Amino acid sequence: MRRLDLDDARRLIAGASAHAREIGVPMCIAVTDEAGQLIAFERMEGGKVTSTTIAIDKAVTAAAAKKATHDYGTASQPGAPAYGINSAIGGRLMVVAGGLPGLFEGEVVGGIGVSSGTPTRDQAVAEAGIKHWRSHD
Amino acid sequence: MRRLDLDDARRLIAGASAHAREIGVPMCIAVTDEAGQLIAFERMEGGKVTSTTIAIDKAVTAAAAKKATHDYGTASQPGAPAYGINSAIGGRLMVVAGGLPGLFEGEVVGGIGVSSGTPTRDQAVAEAGIKHWRSHD
Amino acid sequence: MRRLDLDDARRLIAGASAHAREIGVPMCIAVTDEAGQLIAFERMEGGKVTSTTIAIDKAVTAAAAKKATHDYGTASQPGAPAYGINSAIGGRLMVVAGGLPGLFEGEVVGGIGVSSGTPTRDQAVAEAGIKHWRSHD
Amino acid sequence: MRRLDLDDARRLIAGASAHAREIGVPMCIAVTDEAGQLIAFERMEGGKVTSTTIAIDKAVTAAAAKKATHDYGTASQPGAPAYGINSAIGGRLMVVAGGLPGLFEGEVVGGIGVSSGTPTRDQAVAEAGIKHWRSHD
Repeated sequence: MRRLDLDDARRLIAGASAHAREIGVPMCIAVTDEAGQLIAFERMEGGKVTSTTIAIDKAVTAAAAKKATHDYGTASQPGAPAYGINSAIGGRLMVVAGGLPGLFEGEVVGGIGVSSGTPTRDQAVAEAGIKHWRSHD
Repeated sequence: MRRLDLDDARRLIAGASAHAREIGVPMCIAVTDEAGQLIAFERMEGGKVTSTTIAIDKAVTAAAAKKATHDYGTASQPGAPAYGINSAIGGRLMVVAGGLPGLFEGEVVGGIGVSSGTPTRDQAVAEAGIKHWRSHD
Repeated sequence: MRRLDLDDARRLIAGASAHAREIGVPMCIAVTDEAGQLIAFERMEGGKVTSTTIAIDKAVTAAAAKKATHDYGTASQPGAPAYGINSAIGGRLMVVAGGLPGLFEGEVVGGIGVSSGTPTRDQAVAEAGIKHWRSHD
Repeated sequence: MRRLDLDDARRLIAGASAHAREIGVPMCIAVTDEAGQLIAFERMEGGKVTSTTIAIDKAVTAAAAKKATHDYGTASQPGAPAYGINSAIGGRLMVVAGGLPGLFEGEVVGGIGVSSGTPTRDQAVAEAGIKHWRSHD
């Protein structure tokens, strides 16, 4: 079994933070292991305090449900099969873009969650985190 | 009064697990009694950890509200009478398919909840559990 | 990294249940993996429904905090260093006997939690589960 | 108004981590601002997952209640004025050592919380974090 460690988490956050600075949107950034347990978190200067829990829960969802949060967004629209899933687990199941699983050899080893911007920007920052992390493998 | 006992719960889980293995989707499977109290739970190897609570809450909903969770899915669409019910009870009222009440002589005696796959598959696995359990009556 | 799987969990529960039947006390029995994520749960006929959460939280505590719950009981007495820890994590940190970590080659790979009897009996049943599981290694 | 920023938080965590490594106890380390809002968190390899919430809540308590958690430990003993306060705020008010406010010119500007070891060690690691942070002012 494989899982992210703290060095991985720092690289994910470093990559995400760098992109957040580039686009000028301070973010909350969380990284969990494959079981959805928090490894590291940073709130950049100006990141929204309501986004702390949202970022953590996006990372938890992506890692532990093995699915990008925006995929849940599509699947949970009115009339779609997973409609209503957003309030599951005490509202921790996030269906808003910005949570991505981290894969290693096809297996989910953790997740990153980003919040404070628009969902599109949150997702772009999460992707930048994943890209930076992969470049170190 | 009649309610499921632990032997019933094991049969429900055995039938559901067998079908989950057939379709190749590892599941979280929960069984509650008619009061919505958990009797038994199993997470198959590879079942999602976010689905633990979801499976339990699907079983709770089906048993204690005496209604299949997919029926709530229909009733809670925008504009429908139960719109918004998904966040009730701290988000435990599940409106996504995969929770079924168990009936004995027309009376609800418990419930089964399944999660980790698509809602359609979760429901099929729950139905397989019910079918296997009934074949032992 | 190693963790309990569903077969391990079933053996732990089987060993614990057998001892519970011997002493005539129906129990709630929970098994988690090393991250404190629930793998399996059974409530025996007559097990207390309030004990469902208690058994699960004892297993979570033992596995994820890598410590028997009765050790927390000692450490959290008035005047002792961990006094007040029992209400941590929303009250999920259990300091009552009946939660034991499962070890493999000196490493915590999961936990078992038992509740419904006296704490002494809960612990004896948890120990019986561990003993039965180890006899299969 | 003054409050810790992310650079401060990283320094606090760096100082705490260094001491944790020296004593060989992997820790969960959290830093909040003066309002008790999380700025940064790290779980070292081997830090307990139950300690994630405990570390965060120690930091929240120290910063937002402007009091070291071990002072609450004394004040909340049976018969003392704050007896029972440990279960306040859903159990988030921590009375176990390991949470310290961070002061700047006599004013609380944030807090650090440490968990995974004995309370004495948690506090020593938190103090090392504060000391390292102050050496950069």
